[in-house]
Order: sequence, then structure tokens, then C-alpha cells
Amino acid sequence: VSVKYVQQDQIYDLVVRMRTGNRRAVSRLITMVENENTLRIDIARYIYPYTGNSYIIGITGPPGSGKSTLTDKLAKLLRKQGKRVGIVAVDPSSPFSGGAILGDRIRMNDLALDDEVFIRSMGTRGHLGGLSESVELTVKIFDACNCDYILVETVGVGQSEVDIMKMADTTLVVLVPGYGDDIQMIKAGILEIGDILVVNKADRDGADQLASMLNMMQQYGESRENSRVRPVLLTSAYENKGIEELLNAILAHREQRQVSDYYHLNRMNHLRAEIMVMLQSELSKRLFERYHFDQELDGIISEMYERRINPYDWVESCVNIV
Amino acid sequence: VSVKYVQQDQIYDLVVRMRTGNRRAVSRLITMVENENTLRIDIARYIYPYTGNSYIIGITGPPGSGKSTLTDKLAKLLRKQGKRVGIVAVDPSSPFSGGAILGDRIRMNDLALDDEVFIRSMGTRGHLGGLSESVELTVKIFDACNCDYILVETVGVGQSEVDIMKMADTTLVVLVPGYGDDIQMIKAGILEIGDILVVNKADRDGADQLASMLNMMQQYGESRENSRVRPVLLTSAYENKGIEELLNAILAHREQRQVSDYYHLNRMNHLRAEIMVMLQSELSKRLFERYHFDQELDGIISEMYERRINPYDWVESCVNIV
Repeated sequence: VSVKYVQQDQIYDLVVRMRTGNRRAVSRLITMVENENTLRIDIARYIYPYTGNSYIIGITGPPGSGKSTLTDKLAKLLRKQGKRVGIVAVDPSSPFSGGAILGDRIRMNDLALDDEVFIRSMGTRGHLGGLSESVELTVKIFDACNCDYILVETVGVGQSEVDIMKMADTTLVVLVPGYGDDIQMIKAGILEIGDILVVNKADRDGADQLASMLNMMQQYGESRENSRVRPVLLTSAYENKGIEELLNAILAHREQRQVSDYYHLNRMNHLRAEIMVMLQSELSKRLFERYHFDQELDGIISEMYERRINPYDWVESCVNIV
Repeated sequence: VSVKYVQQDQIYDLVVRMRTGNRRAVSRLITMVENENTLRIDIARYIYPYTGNSYIIGITGPPGSGKSTLTDKLAKLLRKQGKRVGIVAVDPSSPFSGGAILGDRIRMNDLALDDEVFIRSMGTRGHLGGLSESVELTVKIFDACNCDYILVETVGVGQSEVDIMKMADTTLVVLVPGYGDDIQMIKAGILEIGDILVVNKADRDGADQLASMLNMMQQYGESRENSRVRPVLLTSAYENKGIEELLNAILAHREQRQVSDYYHLNRMNHLRAEIMVMLQSELSKRLFERYHFDQELDGIISEMYERRINPYDWVESCVNIV
């Protein structure tokens, strides 16, 4: 019996225990996702049949906009309505990652004690490049834990956030007034990825102006590629104000999407993209194993670097032997 | 004679004209890179033998930090030293892309009139997902135009910037004092990708404090994964102050890298990553052509979506038929 099969048994066992509500099993599976690249596919394979039922809410925006507090308050409101909630908090500034399912975020203490809440924080250390994969698979694990809603919170506005937000059914973009560079953020395209725009810290000066500007910009169609008009909501997460209205807007967006079939189309497109990436990586792995490219590759790369082999010709010849 | 071969002839012809210094040919090649995904590989293939000689300087930082002015001033200084310079300006907030080799940036007018300077601005519209590929290939085209230095300037601090900066030999991270969220930017990991940290707009209050903080953070090793200590320089690009010192720091970094072989290793690693991506995408293209997956894929995705096919099993079976 090879190591691979022992590991597969172990994963299968963890998935079974996870499905009976064992939180330690959930935590171990996520840690495996983060640390063991080779186990990811088997984990994804075993949980696949149990996924697809959670509604995924993405929450993004510049650092300091109060996303974490907003996430907490939304989670608490969902809990009041008896929903099971998963939270994946992606914070590139944090060295903490893993083992956080019991809540490494102090402010989340009360949520972390709730058996119907699953929390995982993810720092970027360690899985550079693979972070969005880790996040995605963690969301699927929470999905397989029968969470009704999964909140995915990310700091920043870069490509990795855009990638992560692709898996969300509803995406919130959180901005704050008086941040100085609201307009820069808006120019940088952050609005494009949002379904709902949230002006948080609405007790601050300039909140109404920022909200008006966001509405106006949409009227004039300056920053949009399609014709959706995104609702703009004011919240003060710290004071728990505007959270119910926000949840209502999310539910309205959900209904609107499900009626228009966009919900399923979006999820299917996402699935298709995911499968293509997986297929490509597995194919090249197979090619490398079969033709022992791994052993030769260093030499080939050197010759390419010295312009003695043209890499484009080499790739063509590789593909031709398949 | 198929369309494909006509296009290959045309590309070959453009590359020949580009090599004789024809600027229109350069411009047309870049426009092809941006608009015609299918021609990219042939363009890359034909120019490959002429690439590898330019030194690539990446310039990144938050919006509003004065990167563009800094890029201009660096370019002008390099021109004074008789160097041929390429500039690729990536600005996700700009709708302008293409045709900009003659300078769509007003402030660059004097540079644009210089025959020894190649400028291209790239907005994100149109090639979402493929932007970093377009940038990379444009850099290679400028490389094949015998540019001594290529300056790649990007707005933002997200994953796409990190990807783009991977091709740089020396990366500058530009910050400004009084930006409000310096610390947030620093926390977000922007320093990690820099080889040289630049405090621009150094005439502003707080410049010295920001520089001290950047130095201190490095002493305490709080934000670093390796032990390089990054030089921190003060500039005032608008007043053309500190630019010579900055260029000297870049040249010192270049020498240090070339002595330590890191320069070649970094470039070879980058080449390897590039080849792997290309190989993967060509392999799956071939598989799709041969087994006519394209026609079946919609149905397969639907069945996966309904959890009747497990995508991980399907991928395994695809790979097994190869």
C-alpha cells in the first residue's frame, strides 16, 4: 500500500467526520489544503458531492475600511436568523494562517464560540500564488459543512482579490469617506467587481457626498462596462447601523440573480475555468512524468537562456509527441 | 496557403522591419499582441533570438505616488547617458491602450519625440486576465529593438503588479509621505517586492519620518522574508531631485546581482515559469482539438454542476487517454 493511498484513506476519513459535524476534522482538512499542495485534489474530489449549496458573499475594499467589523456584524445577523455561517478572512498583512478556525481574531470571540459558525483566517505567507486556490477550497469545505452563507473577506483591491471575488455570488465593495484616495480607488476599478457598494463609517464627514458621488458616477456610466446599477448603502458597522438594510440588499440581489439565471451561469462559468486550469496542470504533469522532462529541463532552460533553443519551437515539439 | 501562414509571413516581415528601426512596425506588433491572442506565440517566437539584452526596471507603488514623473525623469537621465530606453506604462484606470508608442501621455511629449525612446501605455480594458502577458511581450519587443533599459511602470499593489514585477531585474517601490495609509500599504506587503524603496515627493512633511520608518522596519526584520536590506532613497521627481542618486542605486543593485549570479538565476526561473504556462495551455488546446471536447464541454459542465459527474474524476480520465 503506497503512501498516496494511505493519505487518500485519511482524507476520506476526515471528510466523513467533517460531515458528522466534527470541527477538528474541518480544521485539519483546511490545514492540509494550505500546506500540502498534493492533497488538494483528493480533498476537492471527496467533498465535491456535498458542495454547491452555500450562498457566497464576497467582501472587499481598501485596508482600513472596516470590512472585518462589517463581516462580523453580518455574520451575527445571519446567526440571529438561524443560518449556519462560514467566514474566510484573507489578510495579506497577517502572518497568521491556519489553526484559526476557533477564531484567532479577538473581535470574533463570540462568533468563534458559536457551533454554527466556522471561521478561518488566511495570511498570505507560505502560499504565495496559491492563496486564491486555498481560499476557494476552504470555501468548498465550509460549503460541505452545510453552511447557508459563506462570507469571504479580503483586504486590498488587486488581481488576487478580483480572482477571489470571482467565486462570490454577491460581492460587496466597502469604501470609507475621508479616506483621501476614494477617487483613486474608484479609478483603479474597484467598483467594477462590486454588486453592492457600501459606504462604511457613515458617521464620518463626507459619507453622504461619497455615496452621492458613487450614485452619480453610475448614472453617467463612467466606470461601468455593463448596465447594472449597483445599490449604494450607508453603514456604520462598529455601531451596528445599516446592517439589516445591507442584508436585505444582498438578499434582493440574490433573488434577482436567481430569477435571471445569472446565478447558475456565473457558477458554471467559474466551474469551467477551474476545470480548465486543473486539466492543464494535470496534463503537463503527466507529460513530464512520461518523458522525464524533469531531469532534462534544467539543461533545456539553460540552452533556451543562451538562445540556442527557441522555447516556442520546443513547446510545439513537446505538444506534437502527445 | 492558409490564413495562418499568411499571418506568420506578415509577422516575420514586421519583425524584420522592426529590427531595422521601423517604429511603425514596432507599434503594429504591439497592437497585435494586445488584440490578437492567437498571434502572440508567433510574435514571441520570431523575436526570441533578439531578446535578453535589455535591463528591466520595474516601478510600482500606490496611485498618486508620482511614479509616472519618476519614470520620465529616470528615462531622461538614461537618455543623457546615451542609452536607448523603452517605457511600458500600465495604468488600469486608463481607457487608453494601443497606438501609444508615439506618446499618449502629454507629459512625455519630449520623450516621445526622441527616436531612441519607445513608449507604450497600456490600460486594462480589453485584456483582462491577459494584461501581464501583453506587458511581458511588449517588453520583449522593446528588448528586440535593442533598448538598453526598459522601464515598466504599474499602478497599484495587487497580484497583477506582483506578476508584472517578476520580470523586472530591479524593482522600485515608490511611496509618498502623508499619504495617510503608508502603513497600510507597507502592511499589505508592498515592500516585499521592492529591491529599492523610494520616498517620492520628499519635499513634503513626513518624508524623513517615512524613510526612517522604512529603514527601521528593515532593521527589525519585521516585513522581510530574506535578509536583503533594501536601500531607501528620497526623491522629488517633479523637481528632478534625487534622480541621479536613484539611478546609481539601481546600477549598484544591478552590479550586485550580476556578481552574485542572482540576475541570471532570476531570469532563468522566470523563463521556466513562462514555458510551463505555455506548455500547459498548448497541451490542453491539443487535447481539446483531438477529442472534440469543445463540443461536449457544455454538457459535461452541466452534469458536473448538477453533481452527476465529479470534475476531479473527469480530469483524471482525460489525462489517462493521453
